[in-house]
Amino acid sequence: MGVVGATGYTGIEVLRVLAHHPRVRVHFATSEGSSGEPSALPGLPLVSGDEAALDEVDAIFLCLPHGKAVEWALRAAEANVGVVDLTADHRPGSGREEGWVYGMADLAADRIAGARKVANPGCYPTGVQLALHPLVGGGLIRSGYPVVINAASGVTGAGRTPKRELLFAEVASDFRAYATGNGHRHLLEMRAGLPGLPLLFQPHLLPLARGILETIYLPVTPGADAAAVRAAWRTAYQGAPTISVSDGSPTLAEVVGTDRLVLGASDNAGLPELVTLLVSFDNLGKGAAGQAVHNMNLMLGLDPALGLRC
Amino acid sequence: MGVVGATGYTGIEVLRVLAHHPRVRVHFATSEGSSGEPSALPGLPLVSGDEAALDEVDAIFLCLPHGKAVEWALRAAEANVGVVDLTADHRPGSGREEGWVYGMADLAADRIAGARKVANPGCYPTGVQLALHPLVGGGLIRSGYPVVINAASGVTGAGRTPKRELLFAEVASDFRAYATGNGHRHLLEMRAGLPGLPLLFQPHLLPLARGILETIYLPVTPGADAAAVRAAWRTAYQGAPTISVSDGSPTLAEVVGTDRLVLGASDNAGLPELVTLLVSFDNLGKGAAGQAVHNMNLMLGLDPALGLRC
Amino acid sequence: MGVVGATGYTGIEVLRVLAHHPRVRVHFATSEGSSGEPSALPGLPLVSGDEAALDEVDAIFLCLPHGKAVEWALRAAEANVGVVDLTADHRPGSGREEGWVYGMADLAADRIAGARKVANPGCYPTGVQLALHPLVGGGLIRSGYPVVINAASGVTGAGRTPKRELLFAEVASDFRAYATGNGHRHLLEMRAGLPGLPLLFQPHLLPLARGILETIYLPVTPGADAAAVRAAWRTAYQGAPTISVSDGSPTLAEVVGTDRLVLGASDNAGLPELVTLLVSFDNLGKGAAGQAVHNMNLMLGLDPALGLRC
Amino acid sequence: MGVVGATGYTGIEVLRVLAHHPRVRVHFATSEGSSGEPSALPGLPLVSGDEAALDEVDAIFLCLPHGKAVEWALRAAEANVGVVDLTADHRPGSGREEGWVYGMADLAADRIAGARKVANPGCYPTGVQLALHPLVGGGLIRSGYPVVINAASGVTGAGRTPKRELLFAEVASDFRAYATGNGHRHLLEMRAGLPGLPLLFQPHLLPLARGILETIYLPVTPGADAAAVRAAWRTAYQGAPTISVSDGSPTLAEVVGTDRLVLGASDNAGLPELVTLLVSFDNLGKGAAGQAVHNMNLMLGLDPALGLRC
Repeated sequence: MGVVGATGYTGIEVLRVLAHHPRVRVHFATSEGSSGEPSALPGLPLVSGDEAALDEVDAIFLCLPHGKAVEWALRAAEANVGVVDLTADHRPGSGREEGWVYGMADLAADRIAGARKVANPGCYPTGVQLALHPLVGGGLIRSGYPVVINAASGVTGAGRTPKRELLFAEVASDFRAYATGNGHRHLLEMRAGLPGLPLLFQPHLLPLARGILETIYLPVTPGADAAAVRAAWRTAYQGAPTISVSDGSPTLAEVVGTDRLVLGASDNAGLPELVTLLVSFDNLGKGAAGQAVHNMNLMLGLDPALGLRC
Repeated sequence: MGVVGATGYTGIEVLRVLAHHPRVRVHFATSEGSSGEPSALPGLPLVSGDEAALDEVDAIFLCLPHGKAVEWALRAAEANVGVVDLTADHRPGSGREEGWVYGMADLAADRIAGARKVANPGCYPTGVQLALHPLVGGGLIRSGYPVVINAASGVTGAGRTPKRELLFAEVASDFRAYATGNGHRHLLEMRAGLPGLPLLFQPHLLPLARGILETIYLPVTPGADAAAVRAAWRTAYQGAPTISVSDGSPTLAEVVGTDRLVLGASDNAGLPELVTLLVSFDNLGKGAAGQAVHNMNLMLGLDPALGLRC
Repeated sequence: MGVVGATGYTGIEVLRVLAHHPRVRVHFATSEGSSGEPSALPGLPLVSGDEAALDEVDAIFLCLPHGKAVEWALRAAEANVGVVDLTADHRPGSGREEGWVYGMADLAADRIAGARKVANPGCYPTGVQLALHPLVGGGLIRSGYPVVINAASGVTGAGRTPKRELLFAEVASDFRAYATGNGHRHLLEMRAGLPGLPLLFQPHLLPLARGILETIYLPVTPGADAAAVRAAWRTAYQGAPTISVSDGSPTLAEVVGTDRLVLGASDNAGLPELVTLLVSFDNLGKGAAGQAVHNMNLMLGLDPALGLRC
Repeated sequence: MGVVGATGYTGIEVLRVLAHHPRVRVHFATSEGSSGEPSALPGLPLVSGDEAALDEVDAIFLCLPHGKAVEWALRAAEANVGVVDLTADHRPGSGREEGWVYGMADLAADRIAGARKVANPGCYPTGVQLALHPLVGGGLIRSGYPVVINAASGVTGAGRTPKRELLFAEVASDFRAYATGNGHRHLLEMRAGLPGLPLLFQPHLLPLARGILETIYLPVTPGADAAAVRAAWRTAYQGAPTISVSDGSPTLAEVVGTDRLVLGASDNAGLPELVTLLVSFDNLGKGAAGQAVHNMNLMLGLDPALGLRC
């Protein structure tokens, strides 16, 4: 394996997961600015991109800033090396998704198994699609009504490039909405994965390093309720190694530092037309590195859960 | 003035506000468990309830656990002392609201001015009512559609009584929904203040000591938009000393430690039928002590903003 | 294995470590208050102490409040079951240490290997003794001069019993010294392990859930310096699976969530008579559960590092 | 008044203090990068340095990055405007201190009263000097023995320029020593203020926005103890508006957001030769803006405590 861009939060997390993976070895980890320094994997120094020995690896993870993956993808194709791209560059809605398999590992295992180029989903869209996909087919969603997705994320989702608004003293006592106006890049990706649903997506920034909680207000068909939602999830995700359905209320505490995702649902007294869905996961785990390694396992024909923190 | 229950978070905050109030003096601050120890007001030791000299004060603030205010309210009535009750005991929906004026200070100044018994509103309902009240009359809200109130609060809202789920190590890396099922006590209060609106209320617990952010997904009538919402607010709250309308996105950072409340609104691309409202304030400031002192000022015929941290 | 007291922070952490241990199985986890509920180990419900099947296990971990371990130790002795006691009840200085081996796993592996009753060291004393023990014999410490131990710990070190001073809103923006006057219980334990050294121990409470940093101001003999200290450590801990010596400055970030401990040393310009030592580790990892499992491995004749998060 | 450099943490804090100052008006607040945007003072837009109307003000506060104050000091001298310099550029040990009065407001009020150029002390040195200065003359300090200053500060002390090591996700779960080796710039300043004392200074970085706690291990003369230390402080600081002496243990919680400083002392059982001193204050309050406004009050002949948050 190779990890390209190994000093950002996702790159470091991919290295952490691979460190305990029983079947793969990391051959290189790149960084343009810190070449020669230690990587997050004990004993493996960082190298520059030019020094990366593509011919020694089966696949690479692209953990670069958005926009920087295109060139590496071409280089990997020439070297006949598999790619899991954790950037937004080849996701649905990017305009460059052609020829790429969208890596929702729990929804498209078959397609991923035969792929060489996998676009790893964004963090927010991972949770939204895993929550809503099984309900779309089941006739539970009332069509034509907006689906409100209220989301909150820890700051590692914004990357490791120094910016004033990400400084400790700016974030530490605050909570705020951002990207108001339904214009977040991830919304295009959600809509591509859930065509026909009128989605409203409003993210917020938590004073936490890690973790995403999505609270989704779902218009349901008459008679449908939280129990029906949970039943549909349990059917869809039977055997899914990283997904669990809770009868209670999912929390960040139970998922941070893992590759798990927890789903919950509750009815609303006096408002039977809306069921509240809750989805919790680690934006760097299931929302990035966990699903990336899951995808790599599928691409290489390994046990899908190998190395994952379930 | 007297403060009854001066060792909880709201009682301490009332003392802090009164400490800088130019026109009132605090005669006593009570505590059953810590009598004789210093209060949050320098130079004023705590006394037991029995020792409280009701005959020396014009009004008292009840900052007790919910359920404990009833007895004190009777005692104050006998002594002909004004009461601002910060508990839930005499709020709309409590069953004991008769004879009490509901103290939404910015919406009912006239009624409060002549009152002797004021029920200080709950923190969440304060923000929701201030956001929605001016819109109800203005024909901006599309009737019959659910109004989704997604709220998040710091932990001081849950009081200072030791409970495992409020310990630092439990809260510090977590974020979670609570009171799922639309069953929070504050919902009754909101509904009483906003009759006819189908409200869904979902609170969350932030890893912060203070602050509330309410994100409200409002169904609007055709043609209505965020600009119309802001215009309605600006008309309604012209001259309101603690309320401001932002063209941007309200944050907790700008309100924590103050008695202010900031309102914001944004349209949603592709979903003109919903406008997103944002309300930020300090649950202990505008959500408790700030509004309580505002109410006291009104009751005593003082400048409404006197002593407030605007 | 059995874990007695499995709902406190140390009990939960022992279960987490054992969950990934390749050679042991947990047969029971006890709780008096939460019997029947799930434990931290998936699939293992909590049982009351009376229901604990002592005859099915080789050894038990006592993760009880201080003072509660004595009775369980007797019960284990009768059942001929090994004990690792994580409470303070049988540590040096407790008055009940007779017949118990003091479980400094990296300093006394031979004695622990043959033991049935091991007193797991306190968190602060673990770091202090690992830092100072190799230096005592080496002639590096200037005798007769005070050794100042300035320590800071996350709040899980204070346990999970609800107390006002451990509430989120009390701890979150604070930092303070506690147990001033050199009177902390752990000091007796440190002195027993480092006889003859005049120790001053001042702990502080961090606004963090986990982690300990000890900054030790060590009077050294003329000519001794930080390099000599590091050399002595490297000799002493060659092959120690969880201890590393850093040329830089140890941080909490590199140890929290692991069973590792990092040592560092630096000279002081203008003050060659004092070398500053830094010790970082997780109070629940190396400071509790990590060393406890290390001790269990030694007692059972397993690879000492088995299951540890190195 | 004018504030030069009004978008950093100290500049913002100076504006906050001046906003409630009853006797001064802020005429301008400068920023090179954000000219035209709102300042932290409602109603006052930021201007570039070139636009600053020096001829309209009595004095200016220099809140610039270290190294940038020299040029402004010359400009102010030409315009005959008083200067309080909050940078390190004209402090003792800087090499540029000639002609400047060192602004330890509680120790040198007379000299400051007649000054036009005041170098505002650094945050750490403020606490150390206020703690030790009254003890130097009193014969309480045992000469020739190192005085160990173990300090911890919130991150605003490091400024607002974006750097990776100040990002939320880097700081939030960490605690670490920095500037090891006794080489911190502030040490020169402390030594200049406390000549002859062998100081060891070791700072640490807290996961907090604001606040400094200094724990000082002081070698005392035989017979001297914590009570004698407190007595010396009480004599020295009688009437000092922002300094209080506590019989307990000073905390950050009681000083953050204020301009106060709290002193405490405790004996150490078994080690009478060392008394532990504790000093708590807000690095942006007493450690920067609070003392700066205090100095301005003295320079202008106003009540020293005017506008301070005592």
